[in-house]
Amino acid sequence: MKMHNFNSGPSILPQEVLAEAANAIHNFNNTGLSILEIGHRTSYFEAVLHEAQQHVKSLMGLGNDYEVLYLHGGATTQFMQVPMNLLDANATAAYCDNGIWGNKAIKEAKLFGNVAVAASSADKNHTYINKQLNIPANSAYLHYTTNNTVEGTQWHHIPDTEVPVIADMSSDIFCRPMDFNRFSLIYAGAQKNMGAAGVTLTVIKKDILGKISRAIPPIMDYRKHIEADALLNTPPVFAVYVSMLTLRWIVNNGGLVAMEQKAKERADLLYNALDAQPLFTPTVAREDRSLMNAVFVLPTPELEKEFLDLCKQQGMVGVKGHRSVGGLRVSMYNALPLSSVQAFCDLMTDFSNKHA
Amino acid sequence: MKMHNFNSGPSILPQEVLAEAANAIHNFNNTGLSILEIGHRTSYFEAVLHEAQQHVKSLMGLGNDYEVLYLHGGATTQFMQVPMNLLDANATAAYCDNGIWGNKAIKEAKLFGNVAVAASSADKNHTYINKQLNIPANSAYLHYTTNNTVEGTQWHHIPDTEVPVIADMSSDIFCRPMDFNRFSLIYAGAQKNMGAAGVTLTVIKKDILGKISRAIPPIMDYRKHIEADALLNTPPVFAVYVSMLTLRWIVNNGGLVAMEQKAKERADLLYNALDAQPLFTPTVAREDRSLMNAVFVLPTPELEKEFLDLCKQQGMVGVKGHRSVGGLRVSMYNALPLSSVQAFCDLMTDFSNKHA
Repeated sequence: MKMHNFNSGPSILPQEVLAEAANAIHNFNNTGLSILEIGHRTSYFEAVLHEAQQHVKSLMGLGNDYEVLYLHGGATTQFMQVPMNLLDANATAAYCDNGIWGNKAIKEAKLFGNVAVAASSADKNHTYINKQLNIPANSAYLHYTTNNTVEGTQWHHIPDTEVPVIADMSSDIFCRPMDFNRFSLIYAGAQKNMGAAGVTLTVIKKDILGKISRAIPPIMDYRKHIEADALLNTPPVFAVYVSMLTLRWIVNNGGLVAMEQKAKERADLLYNALDAQPLFTPTVAREDRSLMNAVFVLPTPELEKEFLDLCKQQGMVGVKGHRSVGGLRVSMYNALPLSSVQAFCDLMTDFSNKHA
Repeated sequence: MKMHNFNSGPSILPQEVLAEAANAIHNFNNTGLSILEIGHRTSYFEAVLHEAQQHVKSLMGLGNDYEVLYLHGGATTQFMQVPMNLLDANATAAYCDNGIWGNKAIKEAKLFGNVAVAASSADKNHTYINKQLNIPANSAYLHYTTNNTVEGTQWHHIPDTEVPVIADMSSDIFCRPMDFNRFSLIYAGAQKNMGAAGVTLTVIKKDILGKISRAIPPIMDYRKHIEADALLNTPPVFAVYVSMLTLRWIVNNGGLVAMEQKAKERADLLYNALDAQPLFTPTVAREDRSLMNAVFVLPTPELEKEFLDLCKQQGMVGVKGHRSVGGLRVSMYNALPLSSVQAFCDLMTDFSNKHA
């Protein structure tokens, strides 16, 4: 059966990436060794890491004032590592509270310094992006989540502020061109648009480092990672390799302009179908709809279950909403073919006709 | 060319594990999806995680007073996470200083509390295990490294003490039966005997938790991981899968008794050859020789280079010593066939004859 992978993450990867990754497990670059068996301080792995770093800089249009690290620990660890490195105990950082992940980031930051919530959308269950920011002038930085995977909302501009901007881009990185030079720090778990689970991209503008007085454990200190040329400890070799292959695929397939065009085609197709079917109701403010994750509901739990069972029969996986919000969710990351969205829209039409 | 993989880690894995991992990248368990594309909160991944946890408990002979976690961050992160969870600011922990990794663990622990060095082998460049331990009675725990990957030494018994024992077993875990119930915490980066780089096993006796007053960031708090059934955040799915396959391979190949027997066969073959060849000189105390990593030198840098070039020509990789100690090193993890050690011994004989 042809599968349609709408998983929210870990999620669909390009077929070419999967094929090359499987080959590398047998024999990596004709070394006669598996990618799982090579040392991380070999020229083989260094070439992988450097290519990945180069793709990141080139896709983002960044110069030498930025460093590209592949770190362990997932974006959740960055919730801690960012304030540990950048927020002094008596200082204040501004955070946007627009969803479950931003909220977790706020909780971790409070262990290290003061948090000013610049804006919250909690009043409407995070079904919109609150863009009216109140940022204290002395804030060490502003932190926000560019795309809310769980709630299905996305920022469509970069917040305008004088303080350094830090973004969790886990679920929409590399889906569109942005002025990446406006960020002082960007991080993203790889398992949506840039690889498999097990590694986190962290891009750092060097001038924000070294400004706090806290003693930082070396393994958590961005400066130590930079000094060690991004090889402070054994990296997750295979996860870095898969991310490099995925970035290479983005570059070879038209870069971020092409990624955005395809994302808009997928999202237009899906949201137009949702708007046309009275049985299916999108839950978020129209202007804040995510290009990556569409969240919607059916009129009753019974209909939701019936529809989800139908999805399963049709090889459509990942359609159930996040356990914290319920409903349905279709995730449409870079590697998802338009034909999968079309198949889903067709199923919605059939289902609506049946229940008309 | 037939390769002989003597890498110190990431290192050789069983051929069966590599074949199954490559298959799972194409189609995992007939799901029609890649293992890289499945959600971590699916029954598919839960079965993988639970099987891995079960193999760990069964190989170690542990009961329900222990929890098995697969964590991000490598053993280096455990150097921090152990004292963060277990060492109060005014308390003391005892550490053995028998090599580069134990030393790094000591440095991280000092950021959290007091460290008493129970024994050090620094006086002889860590070429032996100092087993005369001086452990303050009020120590929160004793921390030691069971096998020193870089220096080639290994503990052949468990230190006898009343305080909780914590061991970094990264480079010799599952190479032999041990009384694992004598440990309060065991951790190991997976990339030697139990998988590929990108995940760290942490086995915790629950009664040591919750005894300190520090506010622990949730993502670093062992208790939060246990409460979340080892799925606090997105795990490194593929790395956990490869570890599960490797543990399954150990179980299906005779368990720890068989692993030890094979380790001794490999080590006896190699050390006997080293002792017989005057050109090759092992650097560590005979009684502390490691079953996993044999470290030795040749009389001159020129001869070392000539021999290393020969190794390369013969498809023998990973023979160069760690950058911090130099010389040569042959790592002999569980998956290494005896025939590779034999090939290496033959090469030593040829080389010695040529230079006789």
